[in-house]
Amino acid sequence: MNYHINDLPDRTAKPRNSGLTMVMDKGLSLRQAEDFIEMGEGYTDVIKLGWATSYVSPNLDAKLKLYKDAGLPVYFGGTLFEAMIVRGQFDDYCRLLDKYQMEYAEVSDGSIDLEHDEKCEYIRKLSKQITVISEVGSKDVQKIFAPYKWINLMRAELEAGSWKVIAEARESGNVGIYRDSGEVRQGLVDEILTQIPEEKIIWEAPQKAQQVWFIKLIGANVSLGNIAPVDIIPLETLRLGIRSDTFEHFLKK
Amino acid sequence: MNYHINDLPDRTAKPRNSGLTMVMDKGLSLRQAEDFIEMGEGYTDVIKLGWATSYVSPNLDAKLKLYKDAGLPVYFGGTLFEAMIVRGQFDDYCRLLDKYQMEYAEVSDGSIDLEHDEKCEYIRKLSKQITVISEVGSKDVQKIFAPYKWINLMRAELEAGSWKVIAEARESGNVGIYRDSGEVRQGLVDEILTQIPEEKIIWEAPQKAQQVWFIKLIGANVSLGNIAPVDIIPLETLRLGIRSDTFEHFLKK
Amino acid sequence: MNYHINDLPDRTAKPRNSGLTMVMDKGLSLRQAEDFIEMGEGYTDVIKLGWATSYVSPNLDAKLKLYKDAGLPVYFGGTLFEAMIVRGQFDDYCRLLDKYQMEYAEVSDGSIDLEHDEKCEYIRKLSKQITVISEVGSKDVQKIFAPYKWINLMRAELEAGSWKVIAEARESGNVGIYRDSGEVRQGLVDEILTQIPEEKIIWEAPQKAQQVWFIKLIGANVSLGNIAPVDIIPLETLRLGIRSDTFEHFLKK
Repeated sequence: MNYHINDLPDRTAKPRNSGLTMVMDKGLSLRQAEDFIEMGEGYTDVIKLGWATSYVSPNLDAKLKLYKDAGLPVYFGGTLFEAMIVRGQFDDYCRLLDKYQMEYAEVSDGSIDLEHDEKCEYIRKLSKQITVISEVGSKDVQKIFAPYKWINLMRAELEAGSWKVIAEARESGNVGIYRDSGEVRQGLVDEILTQIPEEKIIWEAPQKAQQVWFIKLIGANVSLGNIAPVDIIPLETLRLGIRSDTFEHFLKK
Repeated sequence: MNYHINDLPDRTAKPRNSGLTMVMDKGLSLRQAEDFIEMGEGYTDVIKLGWATSYVSPNLDAKLKLYKDAGLPVYFGGTLFEAMIVRGQFDDYCRLLDKYQMEYAEVSDGSIDLEHDEKCEYIRKLSKQITVISEVGSKDVQKIFAPYKWINLMRAELEAGSWKVIAEARESGNVGIYRDSGEVRQGLVDEILTQIPEEKIIWEAPQKAQQVWFIKLIGANVSLGNIAPVDIIPLETLRLGIRSDTFEHFLKK
Repeated sequence: MNYHINDLPDRTAKPRNSGLTMVMDKGLSLRQAEDFIEMGEGYTDVIKLGWATSYVSPNLDAKLKLYKDAGLPVYFGGTLFEAMIVRGQFDDYCRLLDKYQMEYAEVSDGSIDLEHDEKCEYIRKLSKQITVISEVGSKDVQKIFAPYKWINLMRAELEAGSWKVIAEARESGNVGIYRDSGEVRQGLVDEILTQIPEEKIIWEAPQKAQQVWFIKLIGANVSLGNIAPVDIIPLETLRLGIRSDTFEHFLKK
């Protein structure tokens, strides 16, 4: 930090097990990725190449190298996994992970119908060689799960080998744990937290109000995902209570 | 593409006559324009320097050279044309096109009242020396045209020499073919498509939901405009059905 | 300007006393700051490092030097001032201004309760050595002041030594002089303008509709703040009436 402010909340340090920030890259150029690294390296724990943007991005090899050199783990968005398995290309997908020497993979079923046993089987297979993050929740606004179902899915996926589970929100933040309006389903989150250890969950929270809500509920070291690269500095100030939205929350009385 | 996914929709290749993407540059620096080219060159067919941003942009010559070297045609937004003809400066405007060796020009009347015969006369004159794109629809939310009028205007402008007609939406996507809320006027679009060849129209679609709507209606190779530079990679994934919004639409049953 | 358009409104030139644009940097990398300077140098009068982003930004020294070399004055957002004085660190804050050789400082009370006499005392002290900009209005949507109170606060702060007063809106533009929806509190603005000289006020106006509203009310040379770096070119076209939103307003009849 550049100077000293008294009585700020403690932040976990890298490598973090809680208080993670997962950033979504949905098509940065190499120079833009370097710019992001300059600002966000210390505050970023893992980077998702959003959905299947890696398929059409001209600079994939160079970008993966760039993030690797900066010590930032990268994974392909779950929609790529889904696009390939729905087409019977799971083996191709595994070869892809090999070819690009990926150390993380996301297993999700936000856009396809997948028996949960089968999903857990994918997690089991992949987690033997790679760190698996799995995502719970549909991208379909119509598909709303009851809290006990969220809990069962998360628990089963963690047991199958997921390092962390992600609570779905999409890039836009309006499905899964959020209402259409972006508002948090508070009762759902509260109930999940009675059963699943907090440090096993990454909450997708692309909107500022969502980040603020989770920071107030869980604290500076909540794990948040789908953070836009430009929001990495603003998010860190929210976690520390030095932006108005969380200013009073962290003030010692 | 970086790897193989089975059964994706075919995309037209450059130079494209359908499936065009028109990107709006509203003030990129040179380096930002280079970053955009790195990611978007293969997916971009034409670039609009939004409204009269070219008037105040410090780097105009260098930027035009940069896009030219990348083989990306550029044109000045129609509001510049309007700002000059409403001030009696049509000759100045023509000299401007010469001076900057522009190969495309936009003729529009979104902010001024212009007899349609006169508009077509401008199209006729300019199209003798330059590729003309003309825009139909007002930027004024109060001015709503009936479908038959849209059709007559588009037909007359194509006959006058326009290469393509653009269906107005502004940078924000809330006028012309959209309601104030950004929602598509579906009946209008359907009716236009019964009379005007689909490949002659570029639909301004700055918002993701609008892009999705047109891709679902017309297919991967619909021509879309007013795309933000940062959306060039995301849009390409929407066209290919590898982002959740169009994932199921393109899935072979 | 790159070419000539007749009958555009006159813009004040730097160093400006009215028609100022204050830009908010909330975490630009060095290269992004250079890109901004390339486009915005001539149109920008002062830069705010938003709230306490300076605390967590890795490149602070280099960025301050970069802006200084470009002749662009910089100040730390008022939330940093508040975060330090609420923790009894006013002396630390002064040392910070010294250490970074800041020429401007913001005094605000948007996130804390501060007696107005005390706030004016801070303004008085700081303005002996540095140019002070003070901000009026709460970041709390619940705290709505009557117009006479805005006027009294502004007047007292100007008398205490503020160079300009800023009318609060936050980065999002939905508090202070705006309703929750972002709409301007027109009666409030009108009443303020009957008592406080227009050129002493910088109106925070992060949203385009807000910029348009103030330009139409006060003219091309209204002072606006919390402008995003990417909006510097678009804003200049609004001021000149060469974007549709203000096109007709500035047209000579």
